[in-house]
Amino acid sequence: MTKEIAAIPGDGIGQEVLPAAIDVLEALDRDFEFVEGRAGNAVYEREGTPLPEETRELAREADATLFGAAGELAADIILPLRQDVEAFANVRPARAYPGVDGVKPETDLVFVRENTQGVYAGIESDLTDDVATLTRLITGEASRKIAEYGFEYADEHDADRITVAHKANVMRTTDGLFVDTAAEVAEEMDVEYDEALIDALAMHLVMHPEDYDVIVTPNLAGDVLSDLAAGLVGGLGMLPSANVGDDNALFEPVHGSAPDIAGEGIANPSAMILSAAMMLEYFGDDEDGQRVRNAVETVLEDGPRTPDLGGDASTEEFTDAVLEEL
Amino acid sequence: MTKEIAAIPGDGIGQEVLPAAIDVLEALDRDFEFVEGRAGNAVYEREGTPLPEETRELAREADATLFGAAGELAADIILPLRQDVEAFANVRPARAYPGVDGVKPETDLVFVRENTQGVYAGIESDLTDDVATLTRLITGEASRKIAEYGFEYADEHDADRITVAHKANVMRTTDGLFVDTAAEVAEEMDVEYDEALIDALAMHLVMHPEDYDVIVTPNLAGDVLSDLAAGLVGGLGMLPSANVGDDNALFEPVHGSAPDIAGEGIANPSAMILSAAMMLEYFGDDEDGQRVRNAVETVLEDGPRTPDLGGDASTEEFTDAVLEEL
Ligand SMILES: CC(C)[C@H](C(=O)O)[C@@H](O)C(=O)O
Ligand SMILES: CC(C)[C@H](C(=O)O)[C@@H](O)C(=O)O
Repeated sequence: MTKEIAAIPGDGIGQEVLPAAIDVLEALDRDFEFVEGRAGNAVYEREGTPLPEETRELAREADATLFGAAGELAADIILPLRQDVEAFANVRPARAYPGVDGVKPETDLVFVRENTQGVYAGIESDLTDDVATLTRLITGEASRKIAEYGFEYADEHDADRITVAHKANVMRTTDGLFVDTAAEVAEEMDVEYDEALIDALAMHLVMHPEDYDVIVTPNLAGDVLSDLAAGLVGGLGMLPSANVGDDNALFEPVHGSAPDIAGEGIANPSAMILSAAMMLEYFGDDEDGQRVRNAVETVLEDGPRTPDLGGDASTEEFTDAVLEEL
Repeated sequence: MTKEIAAIPGDGIGQEVLPAAIDVLEALDRDFEFVEGRAGNAVYEREGTPLPEETRELAREADATLFGAAGELAADIILPLRQDVEAFANVRPARAYPGVDGVKPETDLVFVRENTQGVYAGIESDLTDDVATLTRLITGEASRKIAEYGFEYADEHDADRITVAHKANVMRTTDGLFVDTAAEVAEEMDVEYDEALIDALAMHLVMHPEDYDVIVTPNLAGDVLSDLAAGLVGGLGMLPSANVGDDNALFEPVHGSAPDIAGEGIANPSAMILSAAMMLEYFGDDEDGQRVRNAVETVLEDGPRTPDLGGDASTEEFTDAVLEEL
């Protein structure tokens, strides 16, 4: 059955890396229909919104969405889109790829980030000119959902260790609910895991990332810690991500729109192609997912490289090499 | 004039490192009177509270407080004490010390962390069994105070670069107030600075800590990012900190109570002694502060080392070596 994929390139290099990922998906001979959606700075300038209702509708109705990159308006684009696909989990693998220098190449872990609440629930008030508040929301239901998802993910991926991140020594009621719920779920599923305070975890991740495997985390902590882990493996450049809901999902590279090189045709499409591989796995096609990942890694190891990795290949040359490896 | 110093050893190695720091301060021939305050696990077991009112009173009335370390009850001890001294700024230098391996020895930066609000203002509610909220508080007044303090600190320490950390793309009203206030203060003080999103900052700190110098940050972000930076220089073991108020202050090593080695007399007292050096500077005695710091560094470089740094010296032997260097 044909799957409809919303393809939203967004800003800057999003326009270059998304077509590369689509080329790879099309080479797999699966029945995808790609429908392009508009979003980004240029759309904002023309239409007064960076994310037209039509694009949101497209993401809601599609079987999945591929998103390229966003610039300064990222929060106004990506947060509503994550809501549109009702993504409760943001899955962010951080590992070192061949040919990319990082301070901790032994890093190989996955963040399973709660994607709907915490400070992102975002009920803010200006109480006076001088006093502002934000209501951080944690529910048992959402905590249960992310714990179940994270523990299942760990099981499916033969993870050695599961860590539940929190700051319940300060946020006793809210993160207390988060960790208590995770403990309940772990008991029901008969899963072993550790708890870690996010500050101590930040330090340990820098010193011994090899000790971690799957990290289940509240929303903002996941945002910060996954960028930290990206730093360990040489930056955001290579990292894919999945925003997963019950019936829909959105896949995006973790990197931004890279305005400095946008339009030159030299963007590294690896993170976008690896995000497409996560989409294949979301559709249950683990084999093709793995094929794509292997192809990208082989090219990173031996093939033409884009300038960010010290080579002089274009996006197209890199993508062609991946297509050949498939 | 005699200065009264509340000396609260707390738990574990706090009992060993605080006396070492007092030995160093006494060798300087300044007019300090140390009054011991009780806090910690044992106190909790005997008295039903880890921080008796008497100790809080002592910290409030003293000219400054030296705090050793806390265990699991840390939040119930250190947060009230920071309130008692009305500390609005938590100053945390992170740099590599001689003899300590770190992934990024070029790190040399200081966090100036807002110490009173954000999620630590901590108004939490269980709205239902399943729904918990926390009210994150940001005021212009506290934001102004930390920006002024941070910018002055940067000026006094000839900082090359000031960074204001925030997540105002998501917490638009609260962190919006934080960054807008910092911008106002910068204009009044004619100071140049950059803004950085805390997630991007986490990544850049891991990759290029040498690019940063003074980082002014909201409370929880400062908690996480300063531990991250500790990881870059080999862990919390060496890092001192100051909690500074208008008329009072508290100085504490960033490390914990290290129950695994507590009581053996082998704890590394460097962070505590360096915290005492920060106290000297707080009292305006920059020269003695620098003398103490130099002495610690000389011993770390050439002298006896405690086991955490691969040596077999005791806390006392290390401290004696520092005393000799003074
Ligand atoms: C753009 C921003 C709103 C977003 C987030 O905070 O989730 C980004 O940092 C990310 O991690 O995808
Ligand atoms: C113990 C805890 C409450 C404290 C904090 O969160 O501030 C600690 O992590 C610190 O950084 O001193």
